[in-house]
Amino acid sequence: MKRTHTCGQLQIANVGQEVVLQGWVNKIRKMGALTFVDLRDRYGITQLVLSDAVQNEDIKPEYVIEITGKVIERKSKNANIATGAIEIEVQHLTVINKADLTPFEIKDDITAQEDTRLKYRYLDLRRPVMQNNLITRSKVNNIMRNYFNDHDFIEIETPVFAKSTPEGARDFLVPSRLNENKFYALPQSPQLFKQLFMIAGLDRYFQIVKCFRDEDLRIDRQPEFTQLDLEMSFATQEDVIEMIEGLMAQILKKIKGIDLALPLQRIDYTKAIEMYGSDKPDLRFELVIQTLNEQFKQTEIPFFKTAIDNGDAVRGIFVPKVLTKKDLEALTETAKQNRVNILAFAKWSQNEWSGSIASKLNDAEKATLLKTFAVKAEGTFLFVADKYALASQAMGAIRNHAAKLADLIDEQQFKLLWVVKFPLFEWSEEEERFVAAHHPFTMPTSDCLASFDTDKASAFANAYDIVMNGFEIGGGSQRITDPEIQERMFQAVEMPQDVIERNFGWFIKAYNYGAPYHSGCALGIDRICMLLSHAENIREVIAFPKNSSGVDPMSNAPDFVDAKQLAELNIQHKK
Amino acid sequence: MKRTHTCGQLQIANVGQEVVLQGWVNKIRKMGALTFVDLRDRYGITQLVLSDAVQNEDIKPEYVIEITGKVIERKSKNANIATGAIEIEVQHLTVINKADLTPFEIKDDITAQEDTRLKYRYLDLRRPVMQNNLITRSKVNNIMRNYFNDHDFIEIETPVFAKSTPEGARDFLVPSRLNENKFYALPQSPQLFKQLFMIAGLDRYFQIVKCFRDEDLRIDRQPEFTQLDLEMSFATQEDVIEMIEGLMAQILKKIKGIDLALPLQRIDYTKAIEMYGSDKPDLRFELVIQTLNEQFKQTEIPFFKTAIDNGDAVRGIFVPKVLTKKDLEALTETAKQNRVNILAFAKWSQNEWSGSIASKLNDAEKATLLKTFAVKAEGTFLFVADKYALASQAMGAIRNHAAKLADLIDEQQFKLLWVVKFPLFEWSEEEERFVAAHHPFTMPTSDCLASFDTDKASAFANAYDIVMNGFEIGGGSQRITDPEIQERMFQAVEMPQDVIERNFGWFIKAYNYGAPYHSGCALGIDRICMLLSHAENIREVIAFPKNSSGVDPMSNAPDFVDAKQLAELNIQHKK
Repeated sequence: MKRTHTCGQLQIANVGQEVVLQGWVNKIRKMGALTFVDLRDRYGITQLVLSDAVQNEDIKPEYVIEITGKVIERKSKNANIATGAIEIEVQHLTVINKADLTPFEIKDDITAQEDTRLKYRYLDLRRPVMQNNLITRSKVNNIMRNYFNDHDFIEIETPVFAKSTPEGARDFLVPSRLNENKFYALPQSPQLFKQLFMIAGLDRYFQIVKCFRDEDLRIDRQPEFTQLDLEMSFATQEDVIEMIEGLMAQILKKIKGIDLALPLQRIDYTKAIEMYGSDKPDLRFELVIQTLNEQFKQTEIPFFKTAIDNGDAVRGIFVPKVLTKKDLEALTETAKQNRVNILAFAKWSQNEWSGSIASKLNDAEKATLLKTFAVKAEGTFLFVADKYALASQAMGAIRNHAAKLADLIDEQQFKLLWVVKFPLFEWSEEEERFVAAHHPFTMPTSDCLASFDTDKASAFANAYDIVMNGFEIGGGSQRITDPEIQERMFQAVEMPQDVIERNFGWFIKAYNYGAPYHSGCALGIDRICMLLSHAENIREVIAFPKNSSGVDPMSNAPDFVDAKQLAELNIQHKK
Repeated sequence: MKRTHTCGQLQIANVGQEVVLQGWVNKIRKMGALTFVDLRDRYGITQLVLSDAVQNEDIKPEYVIEITGKVIERKSKNANIATGAIEIEVQHLTVINKADLTPFEIKDDITAQEDTRLKYRYLDLRRPVMQNNLITRSKVNNIMRNYFNDHDFIEIETPVFAKSTPEGARDFLVPSRLNENKFYALPQSPQLFKQLFMIAGLDRYFQIVKCFRDEDLRIDRQPEFTQLDLEMSFATQEDVIEMIEGLMAQILKKIKGIDLALPLQRIDYTKAIEMYGSDKPDLRFELVIQTLNEQFKQTEIPFFKTAIDNGDAVRGIFVPKVLTKKDLEALTETAKQNRVNILAFAKWSQNEWSGSIASKLNDAEKATLLKTFAVKAEGTFLFVADKYALASQAMGAIRNHAAKLADLIDEQQFKLLWVVKFPLFEWSEEEERFVAAHHPFTMPTSDCLASFDTDKASAFANAYDIVMNGFEIGGGSQRITDPEIQERMFQAVEMPQDVIERNFGWFIKAYNYGAPYHSGCALGIDRICMLLSHAENIREVIAFPKNSSGVDPMSNAPDFVDAKQLAELNIQHKK
């Protein structure tokens, strides 16, 4: 039979109707001669009432059943669920499929290990919280696509089978059976393809696309990830920023009911490091980092003094909480994970000073600290002293961690900003040369166009990242479209002519046939959906993710394959 | 500067406005002191008028330029283009980028070899015909997505890194660096994942997804292809057919302005073979195939007689054209490609009979032929005699070919139908056993549920294909959701228990935890877009396709990779 309604649909207005429902047995309660069953599907839960005469089969949780019955008004209504005003007086019940006892209960709060959840993902995905995560993701994708369609973008698919370019992160490779000893590479992004679309005159391109990077996995990384990818012709940084801001406003409005104030705040990369010790600052809380070399120029604290004498930086924040010993130990651990061994602190409470360096602070320094941080109530000063970049990075991590400990974060808030004016190059200690900070097709800012290849340390890029709640959710740049500037860029990163030719020759040649200026962007959909769903990691918003070993515990992929399969590909294991 | 309009936008109402346009120089014509330039972008072409004073730079075709100027009314209007009523009196011109001479002209009709077009695909994609193909494809995708969103489907992404299942076509493999000597397989379809979504209670799933098959390439095959994939819970064949019919009606209406009459025609597989010699018949023309054993039971034509005596079939069609010698040679070639060596024919024109077997036809046979095929005007009878299946297949191919030669096909027509009631099994000569015709998770029809595993040759499946203009554009089935039926199915295809366990154990186990009945479908988007664009092959609707060797002549993928890359993956070439 066909269901007449879903389990989330019936209201008081339906009372008296004969209905057919199908779904999963969520809960069974016996009360005398009656049995109450919560019937569940993706759309909700409906209460069934079964007399002994009807319930002739022994049903159990997670059985799939079909019932016919009559909608009646409930005596004790349940305001917490959409169908709480009614129940179904069941006339007939059929078991569609039986169910074994599930390895964990089908409900939101469970204590099962993540690998167990992944092994039985089809049961894990029955939990309403997981279904909502996937539904939110589907909605986000649909909002994105309609937004770009409305703005004259064309969605175009780019190849999964592409060419390996050993610059950058590690590629996943696919042996080609038809082309012996050759390999396809799975794309880390459709970067080159989308730039070619602009040369092709397609004007505005977008795609929601899987990308692949063979890196060691971390909490927020999967071997395959999904990005919104876009590129616009006759467009600069400003055009892309405006387009993305409109998109994010729609997403936050439609998914969370939040009105995003536009334009978003912008902050230069240099300033972000200075104020927040991070190029993806979480602005849901203040905790601005200060450089305190001036304030401590006469310090008696030995490691501050050494740092200042060495030209390093003393950097600090003030946390509006008198941190506990446990807090401080945890924060010291965070400092160490960021390669800074000493986290100094001073507590100020009820006009009393205490803490590791309190005894060595003179009155002038104390007054200066209170003034510098505009302290109004009790709290804790935290300090590190190291090279500026290292001290900033560590203090950035401490800042995030301290905000959690001091409970400064409103989890319902969404705080977005742009970080702009990134350095064009970064120094690679390993390779002892400047490398492209973004990628070698990124346009220098107009004020350094003449000098970017001679004064690399002062060169900035027309590149921009969008940050939400302390996560980089996307980024992009204006591209180099002038073959001469491209040539100078390759020279600046000291890429040998034969390497350029082999890896990018086919690509840069395209710019000789008439290219518009163009800019683009990519957004990380896994991360955006994680944040919108308030999920703890991206695996919670992916149907079948890999665990931290790159394994799917459900299907046991990857796995050994037949020798015949390898032989056809002309490869073998290395002995 | 920012463009104020695109090149397809300006109308007579804009006359007098100052505008900024950006685009490609499509054509240059000198006329005395004036130069006329067609400026092109994705949206159209606008005519520019340049006085000698303005045109101080030497512009050439495919230069990218920016102009400011005033919209004026054209004296001789061009009704063929949207902007044909106006032109721009250019005040200022800036060259954004120069262009080398392109290897072929940027226009619809070119004679360049396909590999040249693929090598310079970014130029090939400048041609309006190619841009329109990609725009159509983008629209089709958007129509599909909004349709399924409107019908409560959730779009969910399935993994690209999956497990190899050696049953079926050849998998592409990806060596796992983190799991030594193990491989991911790229999915041939998300079949198992989408069935698990139904067990997870997600109710309605769809996805537009890349799939991968390592087969030898043919005209309509690419190593990666795109399908619309969907699955519905508490749904049978009828529900899926209704859903897909609604979708196809929307696509044809929105893309071609055609009203599709619903419900679509349905034909059983057996009947399709009988009438059209194909399970994907082109119904834009009639040409019904007849079995003529009865009509020729007294024949004097030796190879008809032998066939009939052997229990084989004499099968024929009547083509309403007196075919030429060249036509008949071409059709004989088609017969041979389908493993039938002799194509017999008889022409009937102005009451005269001629052709290879005409002299051996007696009057009764002639009269019967004219009656059997309800012949009203002159034309050609074509015959083959062979085993029924082989004769039917060959005649199916001949039927399609003859329709082209006789000019019976209206290229603007879209003729859709369902082929239903497919055999559940097919006999594998190679493996000397019955194998699953579709896949081993396909539900037998209700009338053979009791006997499908004992009378395999008479077992039919709840499987359905949708056919458009002679191409199978999609197909699906109701799935087996009862573990006992699944068990019998595996036994029927003689799959050993250890193979079942190794390949599908993780999957069939899921059906023990409460599954709804469910059905689904997949549509081939490349093929649908090819047909909607009247393109000759699917490469015309793919931005960067591979050629018939699986190679991208532009980037030269696949290619050799560094030894270091292989070493990290613990693989090496076979010596």
